[in-house]
Amino acid sequence: MNPTTAMEVWQAADAENFACLFRAQPGGVTVITADDGSGPVALTATSVSSVSVVPPMLVLSASDRSSATPTIVAAETLVVHFLDVVDLELAKLAATSGVDRFADRRLWSRLPSGEPIYDSVARKVRVRTVDRVRAGGATVLIAQALDVHSAPSAASHPLVYHDRTWRDLGDSYVI
Amino acid sequence: MNPTTAMEVWQAADAENFACLFRAQPGGVTVITADDGSGPVALTATSVSSVSVVPPMLVLSASDRSSATPTIVAAETLVVHFLDVVDLELAKLAATSGVDRFADRRLWSRLPSGEPIYDSVARKVRVRTVDRVRAGGATVLIAQALDVHSAPSAASHPLVYHDRTWRDLGDSYVI
Repeated sequence: MNPTTAMEVWQAADAENFACLFRAQPGGVTVITADDGSGPVALTATSVSSVSVVPPMLVLSASDRSSATPTIVAAETLVVHFLDVVDLELAKLAATSGVDRFADRRLWSRLPSGEPIYDSVARKVRVRTVDRVRAGGATVLIAQALDVHSAPSAASHPLVYHDRTWRDLGDSYVI
Repeated sequence: MNPTTAMEVWQAADAENFACLFRAQPGGVTVITADDGSGPVALTATSVSSVSVVPPMLVLSASDRSSATPTIVAAETLVVHFLDVVDLELAKLAATSGVDRFADRRLWSRLPSGEPIYDSVARKVRVRTVDRVRAGGATVLIAQALDVHSAPSAASHPLVYHDRTWRDLGDSYVI
């Protein structure tokens, strides 16, 4: 055991310094879609993580501040779209308040099981929510993967969000 | 409502195609530390996400396959370190099985509250776990932020993990 005590400056966490900390943390960008029977919704999120491979499960969260959240929380199944740089306009669309994210009917269709999907996205997973946990002003969803779509050309230029900018990871240095 | 049905190829999710999907998804790299009284542990993870700003809360997950997980799940508090490219060796250390992640006493100290921390990391948050949810072969932890450390120079070159490579996001193209 090390008897040294840290000499750093720490501050009580508040909305401002906590938000600042996570603005500096990069995240892969996803769009989550669902339809619980009340119409399709879509939400841009960087909060999707793999949790378990056997069985295949993931976690995501949806803020109360998003208009899509009630449907995403209520729906039995969701589709998570993993975005590449070519999907930037979709990322912006599903992050913009007050617009109809399904107005352009060329962009989306439905799976046989009914979920709305954006056709152009090369990597997608359909999931069934198995647990919902309230956490502050959000709901954490734990979901089991049902079906996977992965086009052969996928993922050499994944889209990353960092410090309020969109980034092309494909150009970054491998260290 | 759009009557079109998707014509894509989808496959039933299994360990292989699910793991492949998430390998292609970039994630900011963190190291999570804890000590529940049984000694310090550290774990490299890309699964940390902000959930709520008011109150400040985050979610993370810890796989049963990591030796650090029992301590991380049992501990009342954790420290999440957000890594920059200069922290690459720490990311590798806390991702390597069978090594003593606290052997080099120059690298780490303890907060007055007892948690082990790696001193060199510029952005860190101390959290209290408020919910633990089993999810397949892992545990999802929901935690409330207590204290934040953020050095002025932080975060122009955050470390990203993607497709089994370490990346410097600072060099990537802003689109």
